[in-house]
Amino acid sequence: MFFLTPVLVAVVCILIVWIFKNGDGSSKRRKGEPRARAEVRPWVDEDLKDNTDLHQGEEDANDWQESEEDVEHIPFSHTRYPEKEMVKRSQEFYALLSKRRSVRFISNEQVPMEVIDNVIKTAGTAPSGAHTEPWTFVVVKDPDVKHKIREIIEEEEEINYLKRMGRQWVTDLKKLRTNWVKEYLDTAPVLILIFKQVHGVAASGKRKVHYYNEISVSIACGILLAALQITKVYLEKVAFTSSLML
Amino acid sequence: MFFLTPVLVAVVCILIVWIFKNGDGSSKRRKGEPRARAEVRPWVDEDLKDNTDLHQGEEDANDWQESEEDVEHIPFSHTRYPEKEMVKRSQEFYALLSKRRSVRFISNEQVPMEVIDNVIKTAGTAPSGAHTEPWTFVVVKDPDVKHKIREIIEEEEEINYLKRMGRQWVTDLKKLRTNWVKEYLDTAPVLILIFKQVHGVAASGKRKVHYYNEISVSIACGILLAALQITKVYLEKVAFTSSLML
Repeated sequence: MFFLTPVLVAVVCILIVWIFKNGDGSSKRRKGEPRARAEVRPWVDEDLKDNTDLHQGEEDANDWQESEEDVEHIPFSHTRYPEKEMVKRSQEFYALLSKRRSVRFISNEQVPMEVIDNVIKTAGTAPSGAHTEPWTFVVVKDPDVKHKIREIIEEEEEINYLKRMGRQWVTDLKKLRTNWVKEYLDTAPVLILIFKQVHGVAASGKRKVHYYNEISVSIACGILLAALQITKVYLEKVAFTSSLML
Repeated sequence: MFFLTPVLVAVVCILIVWIFKNGDGSSKRRKGEPRARAEVRPWVDEDLKDNTDLHQGEEDANDWQESEEDVEHIPFSHTRYPEKEMVKRSQEFYALLSKRRSVRFISNEQVPMEVIDNVIKTAGTAPSGAHTEPWTFVVVKDPDVKHKIREIIEEEEEINYLKRMGRQWVTDLKKLRTNWVKEYLDTAPVLILIFKQVHGVAASGKRKVHYYNEISVSIACGILLAALQITKVYLEKVAFTSSLML
């Protein structure tokens, strides 16, 4: 799905920054960290640098004591398919996923929200650094909000094309025949915005580092893509007859 | 699969740096960029900063002309399931993927290489920035090589626990009962190493920036995880009865 491509995942990260700058963030906003990050080094992921002090370490030790009881322990059970079945399933899954395309022309046909819920829950099964699950999925259906999002994304993408990404970026994209105009953000009946949480908040109210948050949320996006392709929930009126993706 | 968790994906990135430092990299090594990156700012992804000059831009313009003909254009076809079927498929896929665990005890039982090939091909269907496909999957079966990899990873992980990641990291991982000893890297019959290509090489031999390479390779990892879970290719002798992942 177009809004899950790396570019747009990244764009959504800018989006969250933009929203914070205008004091109109989602309930899951991380109290301005993204803005701070953006001002200092936009685009650079610093989630592997531990910026907590020893005292914070102690706090979290206590937090674990509290949260330990909340952890739901689910017995692990596992059955294995016979080799032939394994091979067959891997072939079928490859055949199905190789049909996925990052199309730029999306149908306005409605999709069942139950499916959207299921694919997001599926994405939430992704592994994450220290099981921090540093992602927030926001489903947008309201036409006005979708259009506002389109305006923000187009504004950021125009900066990409004209300034931020430099000449090679523009050259590279020529062959994809893309630009910063994203009409499909109005057309699609549903947008799923994916936010990376650069920090969590401990029971103590202190910040908790989310290790590998960009890697973790991107892995979740990959699983979301697979779930969407499995359900073939989307329908394109027109699509590039091309195997190129962005 | 344990070796696809964010930590190990990241560790593999260190691994490639380490290999380059010792002049013993894979054939796909990117002529020292990773080393350079590692020396300057290890752990920080800078792939969104375009470090090419205008001349490079021209070079790539020509490269496109050459490569344009190589691009295989595959007609896009799409059929949609009835809503009931969509919902059913999304439920079934969620039910299956929610059974995935990041286990630390792996069976030494062999798996069909055809399945490994298929899941990697499936991962390769992931979208990527400007369709650069900035990933390299390396399958390792040789016990000696696996052990060497284990030693490198354990060395890096020990640094994580003792120095790099700081006190909170160690505190956070207490609840996961993990440490830097990764015996399963010897036990598993197959390791899939995932390398992010921070740069490509143009037909001209010049570097080509790989935009969003970490995001792209992580999305591919998510799809790989889904493919592995679909085939249930792996078998654990013992597993934590827990839903925690790392």
